[in-house]
Amino acid sequence: MHKSLLNRINTPKELRHLALEQLPRLAKELREFIINIVATKEGHLGASLGVVELTIALHYVFNTPEDLLVWDVGHQAYGHKILTGRKDIFHTNRQLGGLSGFPKQDESVYDAFGVGHASTSISAALGMAIASQLKGENKHHIAVIGDASIASGMAFEGLNHAGVTDANLLVILNDNAIGIDPSVGALKQYLTNVKKGTQKQDNIFEALNFDYSGPIDGHDINTIISELNRLKTIKGPKFLHVITTKGKGLKQAELDQVKYHAPGKFDASTGNLIPKSEKTQAPKYQDVFGHTIVELAKQNKNIVGITPAMPTGSSLKYMMEAIPDRAFDVGIAEQHAVTLSAGMAAQGLVPFCNIYSTFLQRSYDQIIHDVALQKLPVIFCLDRSGLVGEDGATHHGVFDLSYLRCIPNIIIFAPRNEIELRNIMYTAQLGLDLPIAIRYPRGSGVIIDWEKPFSKIELGKGVQLKDGNHLAVLTIGSIAKNVSEAIDSLGVGHYDMRFVKPLDEELLHSIFKKYQNIITVEDNSINGGFGSAILEFAARNNYQNKIKLLGIPDSFIEHASVSELQESINLDSERLNRYFRKILDQITS
Amino acid sequence: MHKSLLNRINTPKELRHLALEQLPRLAKELREFIINIVATKEGHLGASLGVVELTIALHYVFNTPEDLLVWDVGHQAYGHKILTGRKDIFHTNRQLGGLSGFPKQDESVYDAFGVGHASTSISAALGMAIASQLKGENKHHIAVIGDASIASGMAFEGLNHAGVTDANLLVILNDNAIGIDPSVGALKQYLTNVKKGTQKQDNIFEALNFDYSGPIDGHDINTIISELNRLKTIKGPKFLHVITTKGKGLKQAELDQVKYHAPGKFDASTGNLIPKSEKTQAPKYQDVFGHTIVELAKQNKNIVGITPAMPTGSSLKYMMEAIPDRAFDVGIAEQHAVTLSAGMAAQGLVPFCNIYSTFLQRSYDQIIHDVALQKLPVIFCLDRSGLVGEDGATHHGVFDLSYLRCIPNIIIFAPRNEIELRNIMYTAQLGLDLPIAIRYPRGSGVIIDWEKPFSKIELGKGVQLKDGNHLAVLTIGSIAKNVSEAIDSLGVGHYDMRFVKPLDEELLHSIFKKYQNIITVEDNSINGGFGSAILEFAARNNYQNKIKLLGIPDSFIEHASVSELQESINLDSERLNRYFRKILDQITS
Repeated sequence: MHKSLLNRINTPKELRHLALEQLPRLAKELREFIINIVATKEGHLGASLGVVELTIALHYVFNTPEDLLVWDVGHQAYGHKILTGRKDIFHTNRQLGGLSGFPKQDESVYDAFGVGHASTSISAALGMAIASQLKGENKHHIAVIGDASIASGMAFEGLNHAGVTDANLLVILNDNAIGIDPSVGALKQYLTNVKKGTQKQDNIFEALNFDYSGPIDGHDINTIISELNRLKTIKGPKFLHVITTKGKGLKQAELDQVKYHAPGKFDASTGNLIPKSEKTQAPKYQDVFGHTIVELAKQNKNIVGITPAMPTGSSLKYMMEAIPDRAFDVGIAEQHAVTLSAGMAAQGLVPFCNIYSTFLQRSYDQIIHDVALQKLPVIFCLDRSGLVGEDGATHHGVFDLSYLRCIPNIIIFAPRNEIELRNIMYTAQLGLDLPIAIRYPRGSGVIIDWEKPFSKIELGKGVQLKDGNHLAVLTIGSIAKNVSEAIDSLGVGHYDMRFVKPLDEELLHSIFKKYQNIITVEDNSINGGFGSAILEFAARNNYQNKIKLLGIPDSFIEHASVSELQESINLDSERLNRYFRKILDQITS
Repeated sequence: MHKSLLNRINTPKELRHLALEQLPRLAKELREFIINIVATKEGHLGASLGVVELTIALHYVFNTPEDLLVWDVGHQAYGHKILTGRKDIFHTNRQLGGLSGFPKQDESVYDAFGVGHASTSISAALGMAIASQLKGENKHHIAVIGDASIASGMAFEGLNHAGVTDANLLVILNDNAIGIDPSVGALKQYLTNVKKGTQKQDNIFEALNFDYSGPIDGHDINTIISELNRLKTIKGPKFLHVITTKGKGLKQAELDQVKYHAPGKFDASTGNLIPKSEKTQAPKYQDVFGHTIVELAKQNKNIVGITPAMPTGSSLKYMMEAIPDRAFDVGIAEQHAVTLSAGMAAQGLVPFCNIYSTFLQRSYDQIIHDVALQKLPVIFCLDRSGLVGEDGATHHGVFDLSYLRCIPNIIIFAPRNEIELRNIMYTAQLGLDLPIAIRYPRGSGVIIDWEKPFSKIELGKGVQLKDGNHLAVLTIGSIAKNVSEAIDSLGVGHYDMRFVKPLDEELLHSIFKKYQNIITVEDNSINGGFGSAILEFAARNNYQNKIKLLGIPDSFIEHASVSELQESINLDSERLNRYFRKILDQITS
């Protein structure tokens, strides 16, 4: 038995003391280390396994952290974290108070730029390279980007700019033909042709003025190192095309790359998944969306489904399997997804455009300019709204109510449960003549027997869940569950407003007349969110009721389980109960 | 003297009755018509002159409006408007109640998709083409896009998707090597090489699976028509590269393409510009920005300036001339511009990232994810905030306060006048350790003698402009001028809050204690904007004052002069005065 190499490496400096011929053994150890920890602690597996050799080679050849290394998205950066001083705390990955699942500037000096969303690395690294140039610093700047991410428009913008600079920028394409789901699009086909040797001419990256080299085998560490050493000597923007296998080294992960992107717990030796002990039999909102759109699309031939690269995560995959010609995965291209949907709606189709709340931020202008301004009835399904848990600050969907509420012509709805989601989807496809945004959370709902016959939801109508005295709590969406638990025996009124826009003004007038004290609860930023809409209503109508706003405070929320995060910001049912009781005491004292 | 051909054409149907050999004469007449009207009524000139032949050819060959034609941005669509039933009202272009300066769905059935912002046409036309396919309709779908627009990431996303479809889509690249300012970037260089015949291989568009043809002479109407007829018979995605000259047919417009993009009034026969009778000697906010950044950058060598394709409009051109290695026009690439700035800031530079408010919507996610989350001190200069006037609904910057206010860590400031703009720029570059957004309007300020020595602005501090009784008016930014005029002799308090974030809570407490009635005035959406922040402050602090919010209502505002628009939404000084007096009457009665 050899003594462990990995144990001796706390920083890349020690890595650089190893002999070249020791590196394959280190790669083996690093891969095993990742597998062993992710097997029990969960996290993103496949991407990091695919870049083990590349990660070692980068820190071996380049003088990190002086040379600046930017990982795109960051799913693949576990090996990087382990080699840069975080080996001993890597088991805290994605947990409350532990390491972030993504590179993060304030976690390590080796994390040159925080990531999470796709396709930012080229722009960031170019900015750094230009800074080094202006400051007269002789650094290397490396962006490692996957083939799914590089197909996004933002990456193209970065390449297009870099190509006319003489910045010392190395873009490394980590080409494994898959993002979270298999890559799509013409660029992916092009890259496939390059790999097969059937793309004889038309090198896109050379056309954009990059010094292109590759494709090379991303699991042959000697080849990578010699190529990186050569590229170190070349001036200006360079492009290295590296072919890797996602999940490399764990057979099941190589065979089922989608499942092993983030597989949950598994047996580290066999790779077999360990089934989750389901706490609830209620379905995921995602599956409610996925099954319901298939059900509706079978009845309404104008329905189409659009996802930017999240067929599995959003469950649009069910429609892609059942009705493939009407379900579209357009790749990491949120801007395009929205305006494509607008074009479809302009010609009479009924597009369900499913985008995670946090990624809809990428298509904000398109929602305003291409959809809302033209009143095109696109149905936006905002998956993973609210707190998403372990993915943390980059992925929480806690701004959507604020950034959508100022847009004219748009309807904003949040279902309290799975049946409401089904029914609003049903209602929307009947034809609203306006766009609608439907926001719902990540994960399981609350209703086991959810597949009820469809029922139409009246536009702009909220519901009273519980009558009460003194104090009314107004909620929006699935946070209603916590509030219901919190008010249990307090005699407090509870209203699910359902629509943030248009508000149910009739219901609000009755609430404002009956209750002197009103509390709003949402899992969106308090700034400009649902509660703020209630304040505006009150001001408009000269109400003087006492109103308190609960929701996401004005700071970025880190990673942890959703329930831990709710506790940390006083949105769990216990702390809500305590708060409601305090207010009641003030009222009645 | 020939009888006019143009006069006989009210719709493209009549155009199609003309003989091929009559078309050059029609082109001449159409060009003269555009020149004559724009000479007196103002508007965008150069782009439309450049596509006169292409416009005629498209409507001659294709069966519009059944075939669907999408103009990217729409600056170039004047000829299209004139040939599609709007000749007799074209003189109302961009005026209150008149034609929009851009294609607009509810203006004409020939405007298949509303535009204004760049790079949407491919996505929209592809959506339409897929809709036609699914509905079994045999239509053609054409996107006409310029070489500046096609370099934007969103256009790439559209191409990348289209290339793997068999949609009947024709993308026409109108390549004149200029947007509003000269095009930049690697793709532009590539296109230049194609035109010169020095790009032998590496056809980017063929690599993306398009059937590529061209480049052809965009002023040779016979060539265009025969090529369009050929392309009509080809299935799947097609790409036609057309070379045009911006401003074609008016010598000055060809020679000074930047100035003649939207030249203001000019002599139709000579092309000579007619100098504006300046109403004010106060400078444009744009020039205050442009001169001040040069002044600051001479003192602070870490300052860099970034503009996405608006060097002239933003006046960053002054820095590009004075300090070219530290001023960057990155093309129509707002996403890249923001993350490039973030990368620069991460390495110690002080980036002033100047983006029009309406276009900042394109980089919303990057502001949150790449800048604010990492607390990178990027200085955003939001030009053309508020109402912009004749460009209309697509271009008003009336959402920024709402969509920025929910972002943690960002400072939001609006200068009341030119000196405040100078001083906040000075203050920001001293180092705030947080990002800041500085929003200011299009056009002239109010202070003639603006070049005062710099003075530091205290973070989060507002100012009392006028003490008063009963009623306090709180404003943000340059709308203070209208309020100052409106309250003239009313004895009303007036406070310029300056910072929307962080709010000056000390000042607010003193205001809320002194005045029972408070009115907020902003030229941003009332929904979630500045006034909404004041309501949240009041709710947080248990104030029961009567608060009224004035600002942009919850609807899209059309085109007209800024003063006409202000009148239409009661934000002009006369109507504000009337409103304040009404409130005072209520208070004192």
